[in-house]
Amino acid sequence: MEADPLSTTFAALSDPTRRAILARLALGEATVTELAAPFDMSLPGISKHLKVLQRAGLIEQGRHAQWRPCSLKPEPLRDVADWVGQYRRHWEESFERLDTYLRDLQDRQEQWNGDDDAHDPNRPR
Amino acid sequence: MEADPLSTTFAALSDPTRRAILARLALGEATVTELAAPFDMSLPGISKHLKVLQRAGLIEQGRHAQWRPCSLKPEPLRDVADWVGQYRRHWEESFERLDTYLRDLQDRQEQWNGDDDAHDPNRPR
Repeated sequence: MEADPLSTTFAALSDPTRRAILARLALGEATVTELAAPFDMSLPGISKHLKVLQRAGLIEQGRHAQWRPCSLKPEPLRDVADWVGQYRRHWEESFERLDTYLRDLQDRQEQWNGDDDAHDPNRPR
Repeated sequence: MEADPLSTTFAALSDPTRRAILARLALGEATVTELAAPFDMSLPGISKHLKVLQRAGLIEQGRHAQWRPCSLKPEPLRDVADWVGQYRRHWEESFERLDTYLRDLQDRQEQWNGDDDAHDPNRPR
C-alpha cells in the first residue's frame, strides 16, 4: 500500500542523518560525495537515505550534469508546517498553564518568606 | 538503539490513523473505545497506535480513573514546528519563484494576445 504524502514525509524525517542531509542542502546543492563526507557512512548507505528523501519529494538530484548535485525541495516541509500549525493553540495554552503554575508557586514562596520575616525584628521594612 | 526524541516524534506522526487520533484528542480527552469507534480497527490495533503515540510523548493516558481517558500532550508538536520553521525561508522563496514564473507566463500570453489583436481592426482600443 502506498503511503499518503504526509506520512511519507514524516517517515523520511524520522532519521537524524536524513535531517542532517536536509540541513546541509539548505546551504546549497551538494554532490553525494560531499553529502557523505561528514558522516561515518558508506556511499551506498548515504544513497539509501537520499532515495528515501527523493521519494518523499524533499530533495531532487540533477539529471544532466556529470556530478549530479542534490538540492533541497522545500514544498513538503511547508505541508508539515501547515499540519503542525493546527496544534499551535494547544502548545501555547500548555505553556501558559505552566507559566501560571510557576507564578503561583513563586507567589506562595514569597508569601512564605514574608511570613518568616514577620518573626525577624532585624529585617528592614 | 534508542532513537532521538525528534525522530521518535516524526515516526509516530508517519501514520494517518495516529494523526487522526491526535486530531480527535485536540477536541478533548477520549477513552480508547471512543478513539477506536471511527476506525475500522480492533481495540488491540488502536492500542498499538496509542502506545506509539505515548512513547513519543504525544498523548498520555489517565492512571486513576476507571475509564483511563487519553489526552493530547502538545509539547513534541512544538518541537516539530520549531524544527520545520528553520526551512520557512526556503519554501517562501520557492513560492516566490513560482509566482514570478507564472506572472512572466501571463505577461507573455498578454503580449501574444496583444500582437494578435493588432491584426483585428474590430477590437475596441
